[in-house]
Amino acid sequence: MTNAENKQWLIDGNPAGRKVAKSDFKMVSAPLPDLTDGQVMVEVEYLEFTPSLKGQMENRLAYAAKTEKGQVMRGRGIGRVIESCSSSFKTGMTVHGYLGWQTHSVMDSRDLTILPDDGFTRLHLGPLGSTGMAAYFGFFDAGKPKSGDNVLISGAAGAVGSMVGQMAKISGCKVVGVAGGPQKCEHLINGLKLDGAIDYKSEELKTAMKRHAPNGFDVIFDNVGGPFLDAALANMAVGARVVICGAISRYETDNPPPGPKNYFQLVHKRANMRGILSPDYKERFPEARAQIKSWIAEDKFRYFEDIQEGFDNIPSTFMRLFSGKNLGKQLLKIKALE
Amino acid sequence: MTNAENKQWLIDGNPAGRKVAKSDFKMVSAPLPDLTDGQVMVEVEYLEFTPSLKGQMENRLAYAAKTEKGQVMRGRGIGRVIESCSSSFKTGMTVHGYLGWQTHSVMDSRDLTILPDDGFTRLHLGPLGSTGMAAYFGFFDAGKPKSGDNVLISGAAGAVGSMVGQMAKISGCKVVGVAGGPQKCEHLINGLKLDGAIDYKSEELKTAMKRHAPNGFDVIFDNVGGPFLDAALANMAVGARVVICGAISRYETDNPPPGPKNYFQLVHKRANMRGILSPDYKERFPEARAQIKSWIAEDKFRYFEDIQEGFDNIPSTFMRLFSGKNLGKQLLKIKALE
Repeated sequence: MTNAENKQWLIDGNPAGRKVAKSDFKMVSAPLPDLTDGQVMVEVEYLEFTPSLKGQMENRLAYAAKTEKGQVMRGRGIGRVIESCSSSFKTGMTVHGYLGWQTHSVMDSRDLTILPDDGFTRLHLGPLGSTGMAAYFGFFDAGKPKSGDNVLISGAAGAVGSMVGQMAKISGCKVVGVAGGPQKCEHLINGLKLDGAIDYKSEELKTAMKRHAPNGFDVIFDNVGGPFLDAALANMAVGARVVICGAISRYETDNPPPGPKNYFQLVHKRANMRGILSPDYKERFPEARAQIKSWIAEDKFRYFEDIQEGFDNIPSTFMRLFSGKNLGKQLLKIKALE
Repeated sequence: MTNAENKQWLIDGNPAGRKVAKSDFKMVSAPLPDLTDGQVMVEVEYLEFTPSLKGQMENRLAYAAKTEKGQVMRGRGIGRVIESCSSSFKTGMTVHGYLGWQTHSVMDSRDLTILPDDGFTRLHLGPLGSTGMAAYFGFFDAGKPKSGDNVLISGAAGAVGSMVGQMAKISGCKVVGVAGGPQKCEHLINGLKLDGAIDYKSEELKTAMKRHAPNGFDVIFDNVGGPFLDAALANMAVGARVVICGAISRYETDNPPPGPKNYFQLVHKRANMRGILSPDYKERFPEARAQIKSWIAEDKFRYFEDIQEGFDNIPSTFMRLFSGKNLGKQLLKIKALE
């Protein structure tokens, strides 16, 4: 393998306080190293993208390892083992892990998970991966839905939101999703079968929420923050559970906007606002994965991917998240042709 | 009784968006009516004051009945029955209820509670009343303290705060209180026996909190809001419980200040922010009262009252709450001499 080359995208800038840009990354070629004991070489096939990768570039996340300029940009992916110095990893196996933005990843085998070739492999970058775990445990554990509850979801056409919306429908809730633009709102109704959609680009949020749930929402699942959260806190039912999963509206400014000015409604409505991180539920991942797989198998659960292609397009694909271009989970296939 | 007169303070202004003023009230004299069946006449002895009475004047509280100009100002008190058309209420009995800002209160007996003359009667305006219930259920039910937890309390020298601080000490927690001025801070340490005190008038909150609990606070009990809450959210331990009991910093402005800008720390710390209203726990009041009485009897629990005197001083006593003048529970004795 010593003549092969590894193409990589390195971190070359810190996007704190602004939009992430293509110039925050630099493409390089590096020779592929020889493997040492316990190492595995993986040819990367798909990468997944999450908004929190921007926070990791900025070293803003207490729970994530530090990053620095010049290192390969982090990111989860799936790929195929092409060389192995680990007895349990065979050439041809499909694996999952933090492969990074590169064509080949040389990893300690302990940092990789072998995926069965059961037709579900790519789902480990979505519904069976961190996206799905955040949706599942955020909604069920923190949201505590009951049948008949009114549920409100921001970023409802996004990766996490579109899963939460369907979980809420499966749970017998009345579900209203918020998304930007008529195409996404149409998708909420016809693709995800939600009961209502609010287009934040054209509707006044507080009034629209009130119209959809005059007595307020019992569960609010927020991926966005900002004006959504303010309006949602003004539209809680008594005893509401507010799940904070993300705040993409805060990711592109150095000076985060003010917090939710209606937070004191938590008292008036005896409500609860809770932040979640999926890794806390690691021990229960198998339970969640089994449940999600069975919903998919029973056709109760639809899964939406936005798959871009080509190694060169990695940074621009990442940027799609912040301009709200993706419908469902944002992925990229490294090779344009398989 | 028909020749007797009832002195009353009526609502005469709406203090929304500004400080409450003496001119928001008007003193009048009214003849005492004859009682009808089931009614009781009470001579008011003590009134209690809470910040939420201002919200009631402004009709801002969804959970409280509407008020209007010209009605007797609301307020809980204790008094003595001086005339009764109800078989279970005898002249001379001590009763508790929403007696209002007046010398005499004619009430439906169903709206009154008879208090045993056990030496604890005035405590029903404090530790055994709504103040105590908010402290008890807010701290134990929403705060979920464990022995060894770091606990942070705002308004720690106030009525609710000084109870929470002592409950936290009884629970084996390390307790830091925030209050304004050296006198109150001295009281936190020597009167309430807390482990630490922060003077918000002279210390930078975020830094001071960090110094007292480098790994963050497990329970945060907030009566104040504003800059306290911002700083506290930046000083949470993983898994923290934030109890929102009040927000006196928001009570004097029409345009509430921005919400807590560090709310997204709820995600980084997988924490929980919950609003509580004590009436939700009504069924469990007897349990809480028995516990608090036994702590008082065992001398584990000290109770602080700030007792002003004289009917004419009712509005100015109410105003003391908002300028932070009271140390402990703000009460007023209607007669200057008993």
